[in-house]
Amino acid sequence: MMAQQVNSPLLKRPRADRGAEEEPDSSEGFTFSQEPTLDQIRAMQNQFARERDWDQFHSPRNLLLAMVGEVGEVAELFQWRGEVKEGLPDWSEKDKKHLSQELSDVLIYLVRLAEKCQVDLPAATVEKIKLNKQKYPAHQVYGSSKKYTEYATPEKNSS
Amino acid sequence: MMAQQVNSPLLKRPRADRGAEEEPDSSEGFTFSQEPTLDQIRAMQNQFARERDWDQFHSPRNLLLAMVGEVGEVAELFQWRGEVKEGLPDWSEKDKKHLSQELSDVLIYLVRLAEKCQVDLPAATVEKIKLNKQKYPAHQVYGSSKKYTEYATPEKNSS
Amino acid sequence: MMAQQVNSPLLKRPRADRGAEEEPDSSEGFTFSQEPTLDQIRAMQNQFARERDWDQFHSPRNLLLAMVGEVGEVAELFQWRGEVKEGLPDWSEKDKKHLSQELSDVLIYLVRLAEKCQVDLPAATVEKIKLNKQKYPAHQVYGSSKKYTEYATPEKNSS
Amino acid sequence: MMAQQVNSPLLKRPRADRGAEEEPDSSEGFTFSQEPTLDQIRAMQNQFARERDWDQFHSPRNLLLAMVGEVGEVAELFQWRGEVKEGLPDWSEKDKKHLSQELSDVLIYLVRLAEKCQVDLPAATVEKIKLNKQKYPAHQVYGSSKKYTEYATPEKNSS
Repeated sequence: MMAQQVNSPLLKRPRADRGAEEEPDSSEGFTFSQEPTLDQIRAMQNQFARERDWDQFHSPRNLLLAMVGEVGEVAELFQWRGEVKEGLPDWSEKDKKHLSQELSDVLIYLVRLAEKCQVDLPAATVEKIKLNKQKYPAHQVYGSSKKYTEYATPEKNSS
Repeated sequence: MMAQQVNSPLLKRPRADRGAEEEPDSSEGFTFSQEPTLDQIRAMQNQFARERDWDQFHSPRNLLLAMVGEVGEVAELFQWRGEVKEGLPDWSEKDKKHLSQELSDVLIYLVRLAEKCQVDLPAATVEKIKLNKQKYPAHQVYGSSKKYTEYATPEKNSS
Repeated sequence: MMAQQVNSPLLKRPRADRGAEEEPDSSEGFTFSQEPTLDQIRAMQNQFARERDWDQFHSPRNLLLAMVGEVGEVAELFQWRGEVKEGLPDWSEKDKKHLSQELSDVLIYLVRLAEKCQVDLPAATVEKIKLNKQKYPAHQVYGSSKKYTEYATPEKNSS
Repeated sequence: MMAQQVNSPLLKRPRADRGAEEEPDSSEGFTFSQEPTLDQIRAMQNQFARERDWDQFHSPRNLLLAMVGEVGEVAELFQWRGEVKEGLPDWSEKDKKHLSQELSDVLIYLVRLAEKCQVDLPAATVEKIKLNKQKYPAHQVYGSSKKYTEYATPEKNSS
């Protein structure tokens, strides 16, 4: 997939401009920083590898396994806690910091893997969300965990 | 971690402005679309869940397991191929499309998980890359796979 | 690691012979079938691959990625449920069946991966449990979730 | 699924008794130790948890995340190596030891997860292998990587 400008209606009205009539987020206004963008992260990590001559190790499957390793580290942070609350109110600052680092590591390898596979990750994500909207029409699946489960985890052939 | 403006030297000069003297990418100029940004993806997915009343299912551990599931689907696309080349020259268009969708799914759940944990993912990633630069000084680790391996996978206590 | 007879005190008295004085399982007597053993599963899967001439695809990293894929499928079965109870009393028969298949798939690839790496998995597991007993002395860590967490997820260097 | 005696033709003739006419393993006679069996590992780990009063932490999803963490640690051992050869001839003794520990950790949590879900893992695995034999008839899929790929990773709906 070649890189191209995304032109989605969703992107036209920046968050800050959204009208007051709109239902508030459950996450009460928590937002991310506007930068770095995914392409900036890609460029930063590309430069990081080049400066160390590590590009040679960044084959797609090496990067995939590295990402699996980082997902494992995220899992380790959640493994003995039972369900945890939004915003992690019961976590220590140290654990939150650690989590933010491990999530970053997943992102870094995901971005690098996409680059090496020449997948335009931001554009692909817009496509995928569009597809999901068609697959799960809001009026059909609204609020139903049963329908949610059915829709979201269709019976697949186990391999 | 609260959202904040990132102010990294790396971000000051946009890619398009970089001078001709700079060493070219190994990925030969492959870039991502500039949009959507991570925060826009967060907002899109937040709206998607709200419109379906699915926010109730998006607890941190549910999202983490969903991300693990999507990483598994990426792995399935790579599992019987042996090593694959950069840019996936031997893959069918259908397989490349499928991969772009699965990588997007990983990103969607990663972003959603970060939102629900109130981790400012782009800012955290800048921090992490900065940390990695300190941890692996270019002059010490340059081009050495041995050093790379040692540095990148330090002996950890197995749990 | 070469295959060798394991000689662990734990193995000397078969389960069926254990005296009535012994504290009952928390899982109230749920046990596995005595067969197939891990080596029998290894042999069955080895034969399965040979009969299809699929041995050629079973390189260690291919098998590892296949295992990651199957772990992802297990995760998908658990992803939208919140915490689930022991014995899965709320699951449909169909979901339980599906889970038993996906757990089997993880085991099949784990066994095959161990075979291809020439790791004697049952012997290695005895060693690892022995190591864990030393690492987490019962009298020091008894019943303490805090201690459990500290011991079981030591602060590691994030990579 | 209740524990039950497995009665599979595959199990009737122990490995040691197999005739000389049989095609040799590709893995040249590498076998596992006969013990511990999966049920013995289950019992050992059950006792280990009971002695530490850690049973309380071993809910199915906690165990699943722990298994994901261990799979991540296996991935980390393979991540920067490119393809590796059967038997790991290029690995150091230390790395092999480390791998045998991480594979054991995956097995320990897999067994424990199955126990807590009351899945009779050895019996389920026999069932699954039987199913796979039907799904991939040897004469149809023999030696064909194309067919193998098609059969083994059927196009699934991406979620």
